[in-house]
Amino acid sequence: MFELGVVYRNIKRADRQVTDQLAALGSATVHEAMGRVGLMKPYMRPIYSGAQISGTAVTVLLHPGDNWMMHVAAEQIQPGDVVVAAVTAECTDGYFGDLLATSFMARGARALIIDAGVRDVKTLTEMGFPVWSRAISSKGTIKATLGSVNVPVVCAGMSVQPGDAIVADDDGVVVVPKAIAAQTLKDAQAREANEGEKRNKLASGVLGLDMYNMREPLAKAGLRYID
Amino acid sequence: MFELGVVYRNIKRADRQVTDQLAALGSATVHEAMGRVGLMKPYMRPIYSGAQISGTAVTVLLHPGDNWMMHVAAEQIQPGDVVVAAVTAECTDGYFGDLLATSFMARGARALIIDAGVRDVKTLTEMGFPVWSRAISSKGTIKATLGSVNVPVVCAGMSVQPGDAIVADDDGVVVVPKAIAAQTLKDAQAREANEGEKRNKLASGVLGLDMYNMREPLAKAGLRYID
Amino acid sequence: MFELGVVYRNIKRADRQVTDQLAALGSATVHEAMGRVGLMKPYMRPIYSGAQISGTAVTVLLHPGDNWMMHVAAEQIQPGDVVVAAVTAECTDGYFGDLLATSFMARGARALIIDAGVRDVKTLTEMGFPVWSRAISSKGTIKATLGSVNVPVVCAGMSVQPGDAIVADDDGVVVVPKAIAAQTLKDAQAREANEGEKRNKLASGVLGLDMYNMREPLAKAGLRYID
Amino acid sequence: MFELGVVYRNIKRADRQVTDQLAALGSATVHEAMGRVGLMKPYMRPIYSGAQISGTAVTVLLHPGDNWMMHVAAEQIQPGDVVVAAVTAECTDGYFGDLLATSFMARGARALIIDAGVRDVKTLTEMGFPVWSRAISSKGTIKATLGSVNVPVVCAGMSVQPGDAIVADDDGVVVVPKAIAAQTLKDAQAREANEGEKRNKLASGVLGLDMYNMREPLAKAGLRYID
Amino acid sequence: MFELGVVYRNIKRADRQVTDQLAALGSATVHEAMGRVGLMKPYMRPIYSGAQISGTAVTVLLHPGDNWMMHVAAEQIQPGDVVVAAVTAECTDGYFGDLLATSFMARGARALIIDAGVRDVKTLTEMGFPVWSRAISSKGTIKATLGSVNVPVVCAGMSVQPGDAIVADDDGVVVVPKAIAAQTLKDAQAREANEGEKRNKLASGVLGLDMYNMREPLAKAGLRYID
Amino acid sequence: MFELGVVYRNIKRADRQVTDQLAALGSATVHEAMGRVGLMKPYMRPIYSGAQISGTAVTVLLHPGDNWMMHVAAEQIQPGDVVVAAVTAECTDGYFGDLLATSFMARGARALIIDAGVRDVKTLTEMGFPVWSRAISSKGTIKATLGSVNVPVVCAGMSVQPGDAIVADDDGVVVVPKAIAAQTLKDAQAREANEGEKRNKLASGVLGLDMYNMREPLAKAGLRYID
Repeated sequence: MFELGVVYRNIKRADRQVTDQLAALGSATVHEAMGRVGLMKPYMRPIYSGAQISGTAVTVLLHPGDNWMMHVAAEQIQPGDVVVAAVTAECTDGYFGDLLATSFMARGARALIIDAGVRDVKTLTEMGFPVWSRAISSKGTIKATLGSVNVPVVCAGMSVQPGDAIVADDDGVVVVPKAIAAQTLKDAQAREANEGEKRNKLASGVLGLDMYNMREPLAKAGLRYID
Repeated sequence: MFELGVVYRNIKRADRQVTDQLAALGSATVHEAMGRVGLMKPYMRPIYSGAQISGTAVTVLLHPGDNWMMHVAAEQIQPGDVVVAAVTAECTDGYFGDLLATSFMARGARALIIDAGVRDVKTLTEMGFPVWSRAISSKGTIKATLGSVNVPVVCAGMSVQPGDAIVADDDGVVVVPKAIAAQTLKDAQAREANEGEKRNKLASGVLGLDMYNMREPLAKAGLRYID
Repeated sequence: MFELGVVYRNIKRADRQVTDQLAALGSATVHEAMGRVGLMKPYMRPIYSGAQISGTAVTVLLHPGDNWMMHVAAEQIQPGDVVVAAVTAECTDGYFGDLLATSFMARGARALIIDAGVRDVKTLTEMGFPVWSRAISSKGTIKATLGSVNVPVVCAGMSVQPGDAIVADDDGVVVVPKAIAAQTLKDAQAREANEGEKRNKLASGVLGLDMYNMREPLAKAGLRYID
Repeated sequence: MFELGVVYRNIKRADRQVTDQLAALGSATVHEAMGRVGLMKPYMRPIYSGAQISGTAVTVLLHPGDNWMMHVAAEQIQPGDVVVAAVTAECTDGYFGDLLATSFMARGARALIIDAGVRDVKTLTEMGFPVWSRAISSKGTIKATLGSVNVPVVCAGMSVQPGDAIVADDDGVVVVPKAIAAQTLKDAQAREANEGEKRNKLASGVLGLDMYNMREPLAKAGLRYID
Repeated sequence: MFELGVVYRNIKRADRQVTDQLAALGSATVHEAMGRVGLMKPYMRPIYSGAQISGTAVTVLLHPGDNWMMHVAAEQIQPGDVVVAAVTAECTDGYFGDLLATSFMARGARALIIDAGVRDVKTLTEMGFPVWSRAISSKGTIKATLGSVNVPVVCAGMSVQPGDAIVADDDGVVVVPKAIAAQTLKDAQAREANEGEKRNKLASGVLGLDMYNMREPLAKAGLRYID
Repeated sequence: MFELGVVYRNIKRADRQVTDQLAALGSATVHEAMGRVGLMKPYMRPIYSGAQISGTAVTVLLHPGDNWMMHVAAEQIQPGDVVVAAVTAECTDGYFGDLLATSFMARGARALIIDAGVRDVKTLTEMGFPVWSRAISSKGTIKATLGSVNVPVVCAGMSVQPGDAIVADDDGVVVVPKAIAAQTLKDAQAREANEGEKRNKLASGVLGLDMYNMREPLAKAGLRYID
């Protein structure tokens, strides 16, 4: 968070094939697979519902009310990337709209995750470019101060390194450090695998109390039933 | 709010027939019929729009980050119930997802009202299981500490007794104490009855000023018109 | 904000033809054209997405929990107006529902902008009457205290004079003072005019860095690239 | 929360002697003794630091922006009471100032707990009348609508019955239901008793890890030390 | 709020003698005298308690994270002025510290009211320069963009014209439009005059119920006492 | 943020002598010297005013409502350390009170920085143990789940590595990465050095406009004065 005026061009990205498979698992399963860590704060919401993506992070550090570095970041985008934008102080200004989205899409970006505001959300929805943000705001920004691209940032309470895998859907945004992306994928797939069977059992009326063998530990913890 | 580790199995529910008729009237009309009380705080929002339900409350008291008692609550659900979940401290974690929803639906639950977070909202929407919550979050929970089921709780600022009638729609969540459910239904239906006629008058251009005879009391209160 | 119990009947409205053309430009472009001022706080959100309107402001000053003046305001509405409602203290109560909306529509109102809550949002959506508000709440209001109609108000952090032009869409709500409405329209149209060309360039892969000639000023500001 | 326009004159108060002894133990110890429940939300803050009180609750249910019932409540105060005020919707208006405080003190009230705003805090501080509130605000209120006195209320997320014991200090406000006040006092005193010894041990450098025998359970839970 | 890059040098200030007498009456009494309007939002808090001031407003319009115009404003300060600073978007940065305070004091300023953050609060307290702000923050600002001085602004939800009288104390900040300053002073003094007598009565045990003759209107409104 | 159940015993701390000299410079000056970065969010407030400290970070990662790792952290404290505590989800519970403070002081800790709640603030104030926290709350915690000690954490929006230098005072909390601590000290001292002279000039009535030679750049930026 401490380097300003710098663009790192060669970042190590999480494995593409691993990263791409994370989307289908969703943020909740991936977050569980990591041991219930890695989730950005729940104020980060999608501008439209139903989008479910994964990609490798290109990070941007911005100043309040100044989106200059978004244009610098655009050049660093590779197909399969997700831009993760942090601001040095809380700000809800609309840093991003349909023109920047057109440029990001042309570069192959899959989404924007921004701890600030965006605008043109109607057009972005029509374009099918998903954004997770803390706010929606018409308020435009200036282009006056240097931030950085591809430095470590803190976005919505979560530390993000350039190249980390990002998973985002209607439930939120999860950061998977590239060092553990492959293991996380494996763990998440394992979790997913036996969910179908569980669902069938529960749908048939079996209780979680019995399916998960909870009655004994509950009794041991002192749970009393009163008629 | 003060009994932990207890499950009350035999609760007195509001009359089923009365409760079922409340849904169609909606939270605003029911709340008016009660004298403008009974509404949970407006931060409680539906995870998808359009759902409009009523049911009898099965209450759950949870601890921050711990959803163990949700499984205990599942067993206490009867067809027509709505689960109302409170937490002993503010928390936005995702206590509830598609597996628990499958189980709740299998038991006949109509909805979940939770003063915390939920996840798997895309799947819940597809399943048609409505939830009103204060947050959406992938963040999972543990199963370690006892809460209670069917004790009185405070949920989103409103006191709820097990068995109370709950009415929820896009406008919010209203709690109708079981002792006054029948009277409230009657009052709400009376309000509803003459709304159609009012709407026609207003649509034809009649002003509320005249329809409600407000001009005199306004003048008496001192309202001045300046041309 | 200081006159209570007064209704101004003859207000000067922004030019109708100018005002009507602002809707298509949208809140973000209009706000940019004004020099990035005029936007209400971003907590003001539409009750359904997709609405995009402009109109001339009829202002209402309300007291917490009291919507009496909404009925007084209804009579002052002319076709093409937008009602802008402020409250003397923060309040999320539901001041406005389908009956008032029916009356407002009958008078020719295009929308309601209210720094408080509304209800009956499902019906309002079906009716196609757009509202931008800070909250949605079933909580009803009383009719007991005088406010004012068509006095200057502060709504969601923005000063509004009766007759000012209002532009609102999914991105937010912008206030255009009537004295500068014509100039603002011209400036906004000019901005809009060359956006199409820019979009095509960006879509073809040209970077904003080059299209806006940013490389030199960035270098001058000290931006360093690290491989 | 559902009875409006009613004053209950004869309420059963928690035992005076028990209640009076709770103050010295403080809100944290009492809250622990109850099993970590009973605490109002932490947005309730004292208007000046250092006050530490306990008393029996006289409850008031108010409407937004209307303090009429505060005067009705004054008459119901007995020496040793604490007034607990709830509002039917969120409100930060200043319901209470030095005149009401003078009257409350003359009746023997020990404090005010109010889920809204107060004013004249400089004078209240000089008078030594402690208040815990969610806000401080000059904004005055009207006297127009009936609420209730000595009905059950929800104040800052906690259910309060008339006559319950209240403990408040710099750490917050705890509600002790009158039925468990005596037991809570005993449990809290027991907790307090061995704190002095613990403090001496910790001050001498003994670690909690050893004093509480935590090393084994930590190792069992899998804690790894890395040099 | 719409003029950027402008400094008005000759503003009409509220009468000095009138303005100076408002301080002693305090924000609550002045706000009541105006009919319960004019109060900034209660998130505006003094950096230290006990200060009670009044003065004439020199207004400043700032951009997020940019305090350049504070230096421009300093030159426009006359003895007895209070600087009222608004920002075009929400921001908590520390726009003001001990150096600017030294300069403001040298010009005769009595206080700063700022809808943003300040820093050096320990030194400001020692210097005895009072500030009411929405935040305290070390975060510094840049000097890059033009705002305005002595244009109308909206500060903490309240419209302020240059030269308006400002009253601030521990209870909050009130804006008195210069046109009604003299009348407001008279009304506030009248309110104050009979407060002493009231206080004595209340202290002697007389109830507000009797002193204000509330029993009859309460009974008429339907208040029931239940023994 | 991703390692749970681990305690790093041998961390590299920022130079002690450098770190110790940072306190006197204060958070605002240090933050400026770093280029206006490194500040935790301004919701972090001291439990009493006037404390001004610096020290080296021992980090703790906690779970919501669980303070077990605080005891594990105590053992890792060395004289001159500051404990920096983060939680995996937002929580206001009181993780820390006078007993833990006694233990921390016995180990030589200078302060606690915690992105959650604390309690016993009256006693902590008397003991002179400073805490910066997001909340004050009596709500106790359990000891059930493993977190970590001396792993990188995100605390109040800022990334903290074990051993980083921390500076905290009434204005907020700044994190100085150990790699740049020495340079930051030098830069901060340089800033401080010429502040005395500036203050004298400003106190004598010289304007910042002239002292900083702002008139020309302001004119160039287009500032207009209107008489």
